[in-house]
Amino acid sequence: MGSERRMRQMTREEALGKLASVPFGRVAFSWRALPAIRPVNHVVCDDQVIIPADGGAAIVAEAGNGTSETTVVAYEADQIDPSSGTGWFVVVVGRAALVRDPQEAARYRQALPTWTGADATDVISLVPEIVSGYEMTAER
Amino acid sequence: MGSERRMRQMTREEALGKLASVPFGRVAFSWRALPAIRPVNHVVCDDQVIIPADGGAAIVAEAGNGTSETTVVAYEADQIDPSSGTGWFVVVVGRAALVRDPQEAARYRQALPTWTGADATDVISLVPEIVSGYEMTAER
Repeated sequence: MGSERRMRQMTREEALGKLASVPFGRVAFSWRALPAIRPVNHVVCDDQVIIPADGGAAIVAEAGNGTSETTVVAYEADQIDPSSGTGWFVVVVGRAALVRDPQEAARYRQALPTWTGADATDVISLVPEIVSGYEMTAER
Repeated sequence: MGSERRMRQMTREEALGKLASVPFGRVAFSWRALPAIRPVNHVVCDDQVIIPADGGAAIVAEAGNGTSETTVVAYEADQIDPSSGTGWFVVVVGRAALVRDPQEAARYRQALPTWTGADATDVISLVPEIVSGYEMTAER
C-alpha cells in the first residue's frame, strides 16, 4: 500500500454494519465462464444481503443451471474519497440463491430501496460466508 | 428494470471515456476458485486500463500460475446517485497481465493517481475486450 494511507481491518460485525449503511454495491460472479460485475441495490436483512433479481438475472440463470440451486458470488460496497483514497470498503463472499418463498420474497422486496427492485418479482439472497472490510485513513 | 429509470447503452468510445473520467473502480477476478473483488485506482492509457499491482497482487499471482501469463478480469466503475439511481456504470472484461517492461511500467505508474500505486513497483494492464456501459436517467 502507498505511504499516504493506513488500512485497518474491520471486524465482521463492523463490516456488515457498514454494508447495511449504504443502498447499493457491486455483485461479482461468473457468467459463461467469464468474470462479470454489476452495480445493484441491496439491503441487509436477517444476516443476508438481499439484491433484486432484475439486476442479477444472470446470477439466477447460473444458479438455476446444473445440479446446484446456488452460486458463489462476491459483493462489494465502498465509500471512498476519490482524491485522498480514504474511506472504507467491504467485500462479502457467499452463496447466492433465488428466494423461493413468496412471502419472504415480498418482505425483502419491500425492504429494498426503490430505484431498482421496485418492480422486481424476484429477489436473491446472499449468505455472507467470508466477510472482509477495511477502513482507510490518512497517515499522519 | 424499475419504472423510475431509463437505461441507455453507451458506445464503446463513450464508455471508455467515462471510465477515464474517474480515478478508481473495482476489479473482479477469480482467487482460489472463488470470486474476488477489490477497489483500486486506475488510469486509461494506450487503450488499456492500468491498475497498481499492490491492489491486485492476487491477480498477478493468478496470472503467474500455470501456463498462462494473463488472467481474465472484469473491471467496473460507476457514478450513481444513491437516492435516485441515476448516473452511469461501465464494465470492461479482458485479459490482465503484469507490465514487464520497466520503462513502460514507470510511465504508467506516473500516470496513476497517487493514493494507491505511488509506491507500487508493479502495474497491471487490462486490455478491454468486452466493453459495456449504461447511462441511467430519470424517466419522465
